[in-house]
Amino acid sequence: MIQRKVILIVLDGVGDRANRELDNKTPLQYAHTPNLDSIAKRSLVGLMDPIAPGIRAGSDTSHLNLLGYDPYKVYTGRGPFEAAGLDMELRPGDIAFRCNFSTVNEKLEVIDRRAGRIKKGTQELVKALDGMEIEDVKIFVKEGVEHRAALVLRGPGLSPYVSDVDPHAKGVRIHDAKALKPEAEKTARILNEFVHRSYEILKEHPVNKERESQGLLPANILLPRGAGMAPHMEDFEKKHGMKGACVVGTPLIRGICRMAGMDTIDFPGATGSYNTDMRGKFEHAVKALDTHDFVLVNIKAPDIAGHDMLPHKKVEVIERIDDAVGHLMEILPENVVVVITADHSTPCTMGDHSGDPVPILIYSDDARREGTEFNEIACAKGSLRIRGEDLMNVILNVTNRAEKFGA
Amino acid sequence: MIQRKVILIVLDGVGDRANRELDNKTPLQYAHTPNLDSIAKRSLVGLMDPIAPGIRAGSDTSHLNLLGYDPYKVYTGRGPFEAAGLDMELRPGDIAFRCNFSTVNEKLEVIDRRAGRIKKGTQELVKALDGMEIEDVKIFVKEGVEHRAALVLRGPGLSPYVSDVDPHAKGVRIHDAKALKPEAEKTARILNEFVHRSYEILKEHPVNKERESQGLLPANILLPRGAGMAPHMEDFEKKHGMKGACVVGTPLIRGICRMAGMDTIDFPGATGSYNTDMRGKFEHAVKALDTHDFVLVNIKAPDIAGHDMLPHKKVEVIERIDDAVGHLMEILPENVVVVITADHSTPCTMGDHSGDPVPILIYSDDARREGTEFNEIACAKGSLRIRGEDLMNVILNVTNRAEKFGA
Repeated sequence: MIQRKVILIVLDGVGDRANRELDNKTPLQYAHTPNLDSIAKRSLVGLMDPIAPGIRAGSDTSHLNLLGYDPYKVYTGRGPFEAAGLDMELRPGDIAFRCNFSTVNEKLEVIDRRAGRIKKGTQELVKALDGMEIEDVKIFVKEGVEHRAALVLRGPGLSPYVSDVDPHAKGVRIHDAKALKPEAEKTARILNEFVHRSYEILKEHPVNKERESQGLLPANILLPRGAGMAPHMEDFEKKHGMKGACVVGTPLIRGICRMAGMDTIDFPGATGSYNTDMRGKFEHAVKALDTHDFVLVNIKAPDIAGHDMLPHKKVEVIERIDDAVGHLMEILPENVVVVITADHSTPCTMGDHSGDPVPILIYSDDARREGTEFNEIACAKGSLRIRGEDLMNVILNVTNRAEKFGA
Repeated sequence: MIQRKVILIVLDGVGDRANRELDNKTPLQYAHTPNLDSIAKRSLVGLMDPIAPGIRAGSDTSHLNLLGYDPYKVYTGRGPFEAAGLDMELRPGDIAFRCNFSTVNEKLEVIDRRAGRIKKGTQELVKALDGMEIEDVKIFVKEGVEHRAALVLRGPGLSPYVSDVDPHAKGVRIHDAKALKPEAEKTARILNEFVHRSYEILKEHPVNKERESQGLLPANILLPRGAGMAPHMEDFEKKHGMKGACVVGTPLIRGICRMAGMDTIDFPGATGSYNTDMRGKFEHAVKALDTHDFVLVNIKAPDIAGHDMLPHKKVEVIERIDDAVGHLMEILPENVVVVITADHSTPCTMGDHSGDPVPILIYSDDARREGTEFNEIACAKGSLRIRGEDLMNVILNVTNRAEKFGA
């Protein structure tokens, strides 16, 4: 019996609801998708609740669940996965945050949460903060794209249960981090101390002096949010017996894959945005199959269209995906299973993630041929009616890799 | 409200995948099954995951689950159910094994795992071993069909976590049983001592001297495998309020039914093989309804065709089943529910059990009439989407036997 390899394609937020602008169809129903529909006819199809019926999943909690990690156990906040996505080293127990370089005045009121979308210089700013020690806690900082950064606290007695310093609004004073549970007092104290020191250091930094001389907003403070504790996550290959890789543009999902011990395949065209190179992603995924058994491809664009509440834009994105999937099927090696699904629905009528189930398609040589079209309505007539937590078991089955329980 | 009786027909391994030799249909789709399809039109239909999505069930673990016994609690290995299938008495805590009478040379290297498929004399050979005592452990042996036998160890401090003595190959030395957990040291020691004693006793046995004089391979050792601990299993009738019986040919499933306290109905035509008398099985099942409320019928043939990777053979078996089911419906008394399903899929493309769901049909006088055909694709459009653990509750409901929860 041949053990197959697998490409898992997550069309981020592609699930949707009926939309008046689309003749009361969903974007997947409305879009012209000859390639996806052709694959569906040779596939298992169905619906998947990313977590459970009605539960609104984040991209992070859903991807964890799809990869076989219980988000209720490993997820306390987004910070650690963002930090891992920036290639920071994390140890179980570390507390991590997403941060923005921001601009504040001397009263610590926010002028711009994104420091004028600063493009250059954050690497030098980070150097002035990284490695700081407060009490017995060591602090690490790393810059991301534009104004983005991540922060890691390492030391005894830390807790993820602290509120955001970032007030998520301008014109108001930054917030003091507050302990949301008694055991988080120390973490809140150290975090507040760090933020104040970051202001003292950054406001005098040559990069900011230079920006001010050019009439640009200074990146004079670092505002943390999304605290979370780095979990222990069993190695993906050990857990599932498949060497895993991912082709994803967004740091958050990339960080989840890194924390699972998967290899990350980066290339300039994978932007995590509307303009991402979809064909390129699939070409890199197929290449990765030479050295890996399992490749996750995440395409973020449909989620962005959902958040932007642009149904016609989402239809256009889906039709570009259909073209790229057609290309994938042309270059697909033998004995590779293709799974196409989503991490959650992002209805254009809502502008955010919903708890609606997502369509799923599983193509393999000997799949029961039960599909008709790839959309929420047609897939509901198929055999799959699973939860995210079942997905890896279903994949191990169709790739002929599952162990038998009993005789 | 009339309490109905029920026949549960398990078409062992009948679920399958798309097969190129069958125009990319499954054997159930491809086969001509006018009787099954006619019943489906008057039935509830759907899909069942024997254990959970993607989980590859054994026949044993699945039948346990279908009968309402959690295999994760009662199943540690196949041995006890094989032993019970040979009508051995088992007490909770006994450690049991499947065995082969085999042929080894003086270096204990395996010449033939099946002792030339010995047909006669194992009853006498067993007498020379049964009742042996090693340390404080009492040992029981019983012969099965041809070279098969079962072994039971009874005594304090025993564990099922020992490896097989049977090396599952010829030309190699027998294996020493090893403790897979520290608490199994004693069991491994006693098992190894028993195997060596069995060789010393059997090699000199008159039955073997006679075989050798005829140029036949001697059955000069007993090789155990598939250790398991006999569980406590609540009596089926007490658990479900139905007096149960089974018409099954395979000792393993027969043993599960015996351990559940069900009556076993044997007749010579129930062979557990391709040539089994299917009409005869259903006639015996209908007769058993005079004295029982629940009758399990297992037909092993489709599973054998799946293991043999013979799709056309499987189609032929299914068409014979369809004929027999037609006969059943002619002789079916009133107020009897008929459930037709499988314990797992055994795809001919794979040659072993898979984790794919199985079709299920539930016929009763007042069933919602939702089916079209009895196969994996058509049944997916019906209402049932259950797991094996749900089956007894569903049966208690359609037989009007379930207790109401609340007012």
